[in-house]
Amino acid sequence: MESQSTAATDRASHGHLVIVGGGEDREEDKQILSRFVELSGGPGANIVVITGASQIPQEMWEVYDRAFTDLGVTEHTPIHISSRAQANDRELAERVANADGIFMTGGDQRRLLATIGGTELDAAMHRALKVRGACIGGTSAGASAMSGHMLADGHVELQPELGSVHLAAGLGFLQRVVIDQHFSERHRLARLLTVVAQNPYLQGIGIDEDTALVVERGGGIEVIGRGAVTILDGRHMISNVADTAHRACPQLIDVRLHLLPTGSRFELSEDAAAPEGVPKPLLDFLRNLIKRNPMS
Amino acid sequence: MESQSTAATDRASHGHLVIVGGGEDREEDKQILSRFVELSGGPGANIVVITGASQIPQEMWEVYDRAFTDLGVTEHTPIHISSRAQANDRELAERVANADGIFMTGGDQRRLLATIGGTELDAAMHRALKVRGACIGGTSAGASAMSGHMLADGHVELQPELGSVHLAAGLGFLQRVVIDQHFSERHRLARLLTVVAQNPYLQGIGIDEDTALVVERGGGIEVIGRGAVTILDGRHMISNVADTAHRACPQLIDVRLHLLPTGSRFELSEDAAAPEGVPKPLLDFLRNLIKRNPMS
Repeated sequence: MESQSTAATDRASHGHLVIVGGGEDREEDKQILSRFVELSGGPGANIVVITGASQIPQEMWEVYDRAFTDLGVTEHTPIHISSRAQANDRELAERVANADGIFMTGGDQRRLLATIGGTELDAAMHRALKVRGACIGGTSAGASAMSGHMLADGHVELQPELGSVHLAAGLGFLQRVVIDQHFSERHRLARLLTVVAQNPYLQGIGIDEDTALVVERGGGIEVIGRGAVTILDGRHMISNVADTAHRACPQLIDVRLHLLPTGSRFELSEDAAAPEGVPKPLLDFLRNLIKRNPMS
Repeated sequence: MESQSTAATDRASHGHLVIVGGGEDREEDKQILSRFVELSGGPGANIVVITGASQIPQEMWEVYDRAFTDLGVTEHTPIHISSRAQANDRELAERVANADGIFMTGGDQRRLLATIGGTELDAAMHRALKVRGACIGGTSAGASAMSGHMLADGHVELQPELGSVHLAAGLGFLQRVVIDQHFSERHRLARLLTVVAQNPYLQGIGIDEDTALVVERGGGIEVIGRGAVTILDGRHMISNVADTAHRACPQLIDVRLHLLPTGSRFELSEDAAAPEGVPKPLLDFLRNLIKRNPMS
């Protein structure tokens, strides 16, 4: 991570993601929202709030309106979208493409993707991030929506249960990962293990409430807020998933678990062979996370 | 694992541990208690029930009295101990040393160890297991009590918290492990991670309710019952535990997690180089678990 002024200078070439596990503080110190504003360019930034995941968009907007006003942001506006026609509106998309910060509220990630997936608005977000180095934030549903393979729904009781958790197509700012939120608070390890067991192609990222994984594309990551980020890496796993019945618990051997509490911070670039201070078991994961995927 | 008749033949050289995560079925199919009886030698076995962990020993005994009666066990008796003087009673210890099956109820493992740790009764259990190949069962507190380093107490809220979980001296039928119970049901991953973070010398074993880890000394292991056994291996871990404040969450990188659902079963001996069917990442763990530790 860099100081604010450096971040502002490099923004055009980088872009940031602020991936929030839900329940971020909006009234007291606002550590996470404050960082989002900073990475968007500071109080002078043009910030838009996408409420499309929520069934109560106006209430959602009011919460963030207050928070961003408190943080001194002068230009912040809601993007309420309830239909794909709206999400394909050129003028609206242009506004999003020109934003410095784009924040996606909580709600239901399936609702969000059903409305904006593959639209002009979706493409505009990618342009903002990849061409202009904007900052994209998302909390809860807005966090899960960020990866290409999106954790869509599914509940598991206590142990992992094959077939109980479902993936869908997400916005794809990140690839080869799947993101779950409210992670420790809702005891979602078994749910994320279920996804990784069935999809070792994906690394599982579980983000606690009032906690954010901040990704600087091409530059590094940092965990901020109150809790921790849990990473599950099933690439080395030996499992019997292929022979396990629907709803049964598979045998999983050698899942690698990483726990990154708030304050964890790693700097690296996409190509440096062995960056200093980055533990080897995290290297692949981090390198993938900071990858500057091209426009698709 | 072996069939009942083979087990009976080999009992003198092996001995079994039935380590139960609490809440084992005592009224319906009694899968776990039934296996305990079988590994003790069948309905003709002489079984004793140690209630020393419990504050309501008579009620505890009544539950197991009924269950073992239902299972056709003719000779089963309670060992109620509430003082170290009783636990040092030679005659009582002799009864335990000659038992075919010794079952420790739930309650509080600190209470159990405070009463029997280092007594004649303790030594008698080791003699029964190691000299005569008896079967030792324990549920909940009785399960945690089985390892040399015993998870004594401690609650962590959501993430691991250094200094919040405490170890004590257990009975030592197993070494280099620490056992937690009611594992998935009480969401104890963070608690067990806390122990492993501070004590990578120990491998963490988390056992679900109505689930047992059955260890055949010198022969193998099996998971039976309704849930799963979770293993945490911190030996390869990179952590900042030494520099983490009291009650703070440490950074943990590369903890290996194994999930063994009911039906998981591995046969191996203490010396075979690479036993067939045993995944390599589990080999050390299993070899340590089945080790026939000598009398101390």
